Amino acid sequence: MSKPEIGIGLVGSGFMGRCHANAFRAVSGLFDVPGEPRLRVLADADDALATRAAQALGFERGTGDWRALVADEAVDIVAITAPNVLHAPIAHAAIAVGKTVYCEKPLSTTAALALEMTQAAEAAGVVTLVGFNFLRNPMIKLAQQIIASGEIGEITGFRGRHAENYMADPDAPHSFRTNPQGGGALADIGSHIISMARYLLGPITEVQADSRTFHATRPTAPRSTRREPVKVDDMTHALVRFENGASGSLEANWAATARTMDLSWEITGTKGALAFTQERMNDLQLWSATPGRSGYIRIEAGPAHPPYGAFCPAPGHHLGFNDLKIIEVAGLLEAHAGLGATGPDFREAYEVQRTVEAMQRSDEERAWISL
Amino acid sequence: MSKPEIGIGLVGSGFMGRCHANAFRAVSGLFDVPGEPRLRVLADADDALATRAAQALGFERGTGDWRALVADEAVDIVAITAPNVLHAPIAHAAIAVGKTVYCEKPLSTTAALALEMTQAAEAAGVVTLVGFNFLRNPMIKLAQQIIASGEIGEITGFRGRHAENYMADPDAPHSFRTNPQGGGALADIGSHIISMARYLLGPITEVQADSRTFHATRPTAPRSTRREPVKVDDMTHALVRFENGASGSLEANWAATARTMDLSWEITGTKGALAFTQERMNDLQLWSATPGRSGYIRIEAGPAHPPYGAFCPAPGHHLGFNDLKIIEVAGLLEAHAGLGATGPDFREAYEVQRTVEAMQRSDEERAWISL
Amino acid sequence: MSKPEIGIGLVGSGFMGRCHANAFRAVSGLFDVPGEPRLRVLADADDALATRAAQALGFERGTGDWRALVADEAVDIVAITAPNVLHAPIAHAAIAVGKTVYCEKPLSTTAALALEMTQAAEAAGVVTLVGFNFLRNPMIKLAQQIIASGEIGEITGFRGRHAENYMADPDAPHSFRTNPQGGGALADIGSHIISMARYLLGPITEVQADSRTFHATRPTAPRSTRREPVKVDDMTHALVRFENGASGSLEANWAATARTMDLSWEITGTKGALAFTQERMNDLQLWSATPGRSGYIRIEAGPAHPPYGAFCPAPGHHLGFNDLKIIEVAGLLEAHAGLGATGPDFREAYEVQRTVEAMQRSDEERAWISL
Amino acid sequence: MSKPEIGIGLVGSGFMGRCHANAFRAVSGLFDVPGEPRLRVLADADDALATRAAQALGFERGTGDWRALVADEAVDIVAITAPNVLHAPIAHAAIAVGKTVYCEKPLSTTAALALEMTQAAEAAGVVTLVGFNFLRNPMIKLAQQIIASGEIGEITGFRGRHAENYMADPDAPHSFRTNPQGGGALADIGSHIISMARYLLGPITEVQADSRTFHATRPTAPRSTRREPVKVDDMTHALVRFENGASGSLEANWAATARTMDLSWEITGTKGALAFTQERMNDLQLWSATPGRSGYIRIEAGPAHPPYGAFCPAPGHHLGFNDLKIIEVAGLLEAHAGLGATGPDFREAYEVQRTVEAMQRSDEERAWISL
Repeated sequence: MSKPEIGIGLVGSGFMGRCHANAFRAVSGLFDVPGEPRLRVLADADDALATRAAQALGFERGTGDWRALVADEAVDIVAITAPNVLHAPIAHAAIAVGKTVYCEKPLSTTAALALEMTQAAEAAGVVTLVGFNFLRNPMIKLAQQIIASGEIGEITGFRGRHAENYMADPDAPHSFRTNPQGGGALADIGSHIISMARYLLGPITEVQADSRTFHATRPTAPRSTRREPVKVDDMTHALVRFENGASGSLEANWAATARTMDLSWEITGTKGALAFTQERMNDLQLWSATPGRSGYIRIEAGPAHPPYGAFCPAPGHHLGFNDLKIIEVAGLLEAHAGLGATGPDFREAYEVQRTVEAMQRSDEERAWISL
Repeated sequence: MSKPEIGIGLVGSGFMGRCHANAFRAVSGLFDVPGEPRLRVLADADDALATRAAQALGFERGTGDWRALVADEAVDIVAITAPNVLHAPIAHAAIAVGKTVYCEKPLSTTAALALEMTQAAEAAGVVTLVGFNFLRNPMIKLAQQIIASGEIGEITGFRGRHAENYMADPDAPHSFRTNPQGGGALADIGSHIISMARYLLGPITEVQADSRTFHATRPTAPRSTRREPVKVDDMTHALVRFENGASGSLEANWAATARTMDLSWEITGTKGALAFTQERMNDLQLWSATPGRSGYIRIEAGPAHPPYGAFCPAPGHHLGFNDLKIIEVAGLLEAHAGLGATGPDFREAYEVQRTVEAMQRSDEERAWISL
Repeated sequence: MSKPEIGIGLVGSGFMGRCHANAFRAVSGLFDVPGEPRLRVLADADDALATRAAQALGFERGTGDWRALVADEAVDIVAITAPNVLHAPIAHAAIAVGKTVYCEKPLSTTAALALEMTQAAEAAGVVTLVGFNFLRNPMIKLAQQIIASGEIGEITGFRGRHAENYMADPDAPHSFRTNPQGGGALADIGSHIISMARYLLGPITEVQADSRTFHATRPTAPRSTRREPVKVDDMTHALVRFENGASGSLEANWAATARTMDLSWEITGTKGALAFTQERMNDLQLWSATPGRSGYIRIEAGPAHPPYGAFCPAPGHHLGFNDLKIIEVAGLLEAHAGLGATGPDFREAYEVQRTVEAMQRSDEERAWISL
Repeated sequence: MSKPEIGIGLVGSGFMGRCHANAFRAVSGLFDVPGEPRLRVLADADDALATRAAQALGFERGTGDWRALVADEAVDIVAITAPNVLHAPIAHAAIAVGKTVYCEKPLSTTAALALEMTQAAEAAGVVTLVGFNFLRNPMIKLAQQIIASGEIGEITGFRGRHAENYMADPDAPHSFRTNPQGGGALADIGSHIISMARYLLGPITEVQADSRTFHATRPTAPRSTRREPVKVDDMTHALVRFENGASGSLEANWAATARTMDLSWEITGTKGALAFTQERMNDLQLWSATPGRSGYIRIEAGPAHPPYGAFCPAPGHHLGFNDLKIIEVAGLLEAHAGLGATGPDFREAYEVQRTVEAMQRSDEERAWISL
C-alpha cells in the first residue's frame, strides 16, 4: 500500500528555498515518513521567475502570487523562505485556511508580530515549525538528553557563541540583513545560539548586552559607491541568566574574521560538562570524572544517536549541513500527520525573538533587562 | 526548455543501493546536470523484494531479473550495487548493449576478472565509473591540485591508513566481506586508501605487506554458534613505493577498535606537506613555510573549493558522507552526456585491485612484489 | 671573569615559593643573565619551618622573621610568596631599603593598598615585578608583536577566559582564596586573563560583570564538618570595552568542572585573528587570509620565538609551566641590573587589581562601571 | 640531617650536556632525591673550552682530559654527552672503576660495541642509564600501566613514528649524524620510537624496512660549497612484529618538512586503544567502549600521574621537554643509591641498537630479518 501524498508549496527560491526543496525531495529515501511529499507549487516575485525556479527545483508549477499558492488545494504544507517582511502575511493566510506552516527564522521582523502569528496559529490549531535546523543534529539531541538526565549534575555555567565572517568585509552591502527590522548579527545568527541555549537549558530570564557596529556605513548595493549608515550590530556580547539557575555569556558576531561557523558552546554541570562546535558537527565532547582518567570524551555521531541511523547504518559517515534540513523536514511531516509535536514551533520562535529584542534593548539602555 | 531525461536502472537495494538512489534523486536540485535522472527500474533477488524496494526508493518498477533491467530501453545507466560476484556478469551485459555502467567497488572478485571487464568496456567505448566516493571530496581535489602544481615541492613521503572497527568484534559473522575472493580488510577498505594514494601521487610500483588475522574463526551467520575459519586479513600494513619516487607505508584495518573512519594520510614534499583525515572531511591541512609563522593551516571547505558551492554559497556549512555520492553522480551524468571524462573508471579500479592482489601475494611470499 | 652574585631572599615556601626557588636555581644554566643568583635567606612563619624549607630548597639559611630577611645585606632581591595580607608590609619594608621587589599576584588585598605600594616603589625608584608568569610565554610575546605590528588589522573583538576546576568540589575548604579581601575566582585567576588582555590590547575602560557563587558554604578547614558561608564568586562573566575600541567578554571560573587550565582567548582583527589556550601553551593560532587557503595556522614555539632558544636550539621541544617562571626570573635579573624594564611592575599589577574591583562593583551594582 | 652529596662528572658541553647540567641543578628542588648532586668536573675537548663550559654550567672545574674526570674521586656518576665514538672508551673506563654511568643514546656506534659495554657493566655490577628521556613522561608511564593491566585487552596493532624536519634542508651539512657508524634518521630518532614501542609492548622480533635518502649529497660543513655523498637514510618505514603477537609499522624521518616532534603512536587492543604524540606531551588519549559514549578520552597530565606531582600539586600546569630530563636524573640518583632499578640501562639500549641494525640490514637485503 502506498503512502498518502503531501503537497508542498514553497514561497521563495533563494538559498534557503533550494535547501527546503532538496530536503523534501530527499526525505522519503532516508526516513520512513508518514506521507510522500510532492513538490506542487513554488511562488516567487513574478510568474516567470517562479516558473524557472519551479523547474530547476523540481516543482510542478510556479506562480508570482503567493496567495494563489496558499489557496491551492494541492498544497498541504506552506513553506516560507521569502523575505522576512512577508513571513507574517503569508503565515496568517496559511493559518486562516488551516494549513501546516513551515517558516524560516526569524519568524517575523518584530517579536510583537511574531506573537500575533503564534497566537493565530495556536487559535487555529495548525502545525507550525520554524527552521532552527542546527537543533536537528543528533549530537545536540544527545546533549539535551545528557543534560536532562542529570548525568552532568546541576548546570552552573554556559558559554556560547555564533560567529561567522560573512559581513566582515566593510564593502559587504546593505540587504535585508542590515534592515533594523529583524536585522543585525544578533537577530541573524545570535538567534541560533539563543535557540540552542533554550533547547538545552531552558528559558533565559535576564540579559545584559553590549553591541558594536564596526563598519559605520556600507554600500547600498553590491559594488555600489553610494554608502549608507549601518543601524544594526556587527557583534554583540551578552551576559545571560537562565531560569534553571545557570548563567554565563554568549556572543553573536558576523564580522568574526577567522570564523565561518563557530556555533559553539561549553555547558558546565556540577558533575561533568559538555562542549560542542558546529565546525565539528559530528562530535560531542563529554567530560566525565574517573580517577586518573578524567577528561573530555570525543563522542562521534553514529547509529546509537538517532536519527543518524537513517543516513547510514555505521558510525564514521558524517552528516553534513544539508542533512540537518532533511531531519527537520522528516519531523515536519511527522507533526503534519499528527504523530507528535515537532519543535521549535511559532511559540518557541517568538520566545527566541523576544530574547533578541531584550538584548537589543539592554544594549540601548545599558542595563539588565528581565524577560 | 527542459532537460533530457536519463533513465536509471539500479541493481541492488542494500545500503549502497539506497545511497545511489538518494544521490540520483538529489543531484539535479544541487548541480546543473546535463539531464534529469529518472529512477526507472530497480532489480533485486526476486520480484517481490525488488518491487518493495522500488517503491521505498522511488523507482517506477522493480524486477527480480537484472537481465531485464539491463535490456530495458528506458534504462540508460546501469548502476551496480549487487554482491561482488555479480559485478562481472551484469557489467558485461550492460557493456554489450552499450550502456553506461556505474559499479560499486571492488570492480570484481579478482583483478583478472576486473581486467576483462575493463577491456570489454574500452572496446565498446562505454562510459564507466567505479564508486570510490571518498575521492569526490572538494578537499581531496584541492590536495590533488596543490600536489600537481608543485606548491609543496617534490613528494618524498606518504603515510596513509584506512582504519575502522566494524569487524573488531570476534563475533561479527562471516559475509561477503570474509570471502577470500575479494574480501578482507585490505580489499574492502585498503582499496580506498590505495585509490586515494594513486589519485594524489600516481601509480604504486612496489609493495611489501604484512597481514594479520586476529580472529581465527567467526560465526557462520549473525548469532550463530557455528564458527568457521577466517581466511582473510583483519589488518594489513604495507610498505609502498611510487613511480614518482615517493615512498612510505599504508595500513588497512577493519578491527581498529578506536576508529570508525580513519581514512587519513600525510603527504610530505620538499617544500611543504598536506594532511587529511576523513574524520574531519571538511578540512585540509596545508603546511607552508614562512619565517616565524610556519605551521599547518587548517583550510576549511568553502565555495573556493569546487564543487562545494553546489551545496552552499558560504563556507562553514559542512558536507557529509552522502554528499560525496551526489558529487559522484553529478560527474557520472556529465560523463554519460559526453561532457568530459569522470574518473575513476574500470581501468583505474582494475589498477587498484591489482595493487591489492600484489600486497596479498607479498604477504604470502614475505617478499617485495613489483607491479 | 665571573659574574657578580645577586643575593635572593624569599619570603614563603609554599607551591609558589618552591617555584621561585627552582627558577632562581635554574636560570643561569639557560640564560646569559647579568649576575649569578645566590639563594641566601628564606623566611617563613617560624625559624624551624624556615630552616627546614631553606635546606629543602637550597637556601643558605632560614628565618622566622621576614624583617631580618629584608634587612640582610646579603639580600639584593626580596621575593614575596607569603600570604596576600603580608605583601604590603614586606614590600614597603623592602622598598624602604631600596631593594628590588618580586611579588606574587595579587599585589595586595585591595587596589587601594596596591596603589600605595606602587607609589612607594615609584618614589623610591626600585625595580618591581609581579608574577604574572603566563605573560612570559614566547607565544604570548609573539601574539603581542603580531597585534602591535598591525598584521591582523584593527582589533575588533576579544573573547577570553580563565577556567579551572580546583574549587569545583563543594567540600573544598575555605582558605585565603575565599577571603573577601583579595579572594574569589575573579581575583584569583580572572586577574590572569585581565593581565593578558591588557598586555595584548591595552587598558580596559568599561566593565559589566555578573558573578555567581555556586557553593553557598564551604568547610572551615579540610575535612571539617563545620561550614561557613562563602562570600566570594565561583564564576564571573564580564563584558569589557578597551581603550583601543575593541570590546568583548571574559570569564573567570574556578568551578569549571572540565577545565584545569583554560586560560584562553580569541582576538579578532579586521584583517586576521589570533587564538591561544594555555592547554596548548606551545602553540599560537594565527588566521590569515589567502584565497582558497585561508585558515588558522598552528604556529609551534621554536627558536624563531625568543626566548624559546634559551631552552633548546630546535623547535618541537616544548616549554612547560615551570619554564615560564624561569623566563620571568631572567627578566627580573636583567631589570635588577638596570638592563631595561621588565613588566608587569607594581603599577601594572595595581591596574589589574583596579579592573578586578571595578568588575566586583559592577556585579554588586548591576551596572556598567567606567575605569 | 643533610643528605649525602653525589659528585657529578659530565663529559661534553653541547646541547645535551647543558640539558644534563640543568637537570642535575634542578632535581633536588623538585624531587626528594637520596643525595644532593654536586657538579664537580666537566670535561671537553681541551682545558680552556672545558673551563669556560664548567663556569657557564655551574661545575667546580673543567678539564680537557676525560680520563682525569673518570679517575677523580669526587666524581660518583659519569655522565656522557660526548660524540658517539667516545661513548665506549669513556664508559669502559668508568665501569672499570665501578662508577655509575649515565650515557646519551646511541649507546655506541655499533650494536656489537654496545653489547661489549653492556657485558662489561653487568660483569662489574655498576648502575647504568641511557638517555631515552621521552620514556620519562608521566603519560607514557600511564600508557604502559594501562597496557600491562589488560585494560585495553590483548594488543593487536601498533602504528608509530618519529618525524622531525631538522635535516629537511638539502644544505644541512654533514655531521656525526650522517656518519654511517651510528648515523641516519633511523638511528638518530627512529631509536626513540623503537625504545618507546619496546617499553610499551615488549621486544620486536621481526622487521622489514625500506629506507630512502632524499638528498644524495650534503655540504661537508655549514655553508661549505663542497658536497659529499650521504650514506645514511633520511627516512625509513618499517614493518614490525612483536613477541607479544602484535604487529604494525613505524617510521623514522628527519626530513619530514611539516614536523618538529611527531613522536607519536596509536596502540590498538581488543578492548580499547591508546594514542599519543609528543606534540601534545601532556595528553594521553584513551579509547574506551561505553554504549553511546564510546570515544577517545583526552587524559591530561596531573598529580594522579606520578611523578607529575613533583612539579606541581595541581593538574593543568604542563611539563616541558627539559622536565623529562629532570625526571630521568631523579631516577638515576635513586638507582645510584641502590633504591631500585631505573631503565633503560645499557642492556636495553643495546637491544634498541640491535633492532636499528636489523632494520638497516633488512633494507639492504630487501628481506624480513628476525631478531
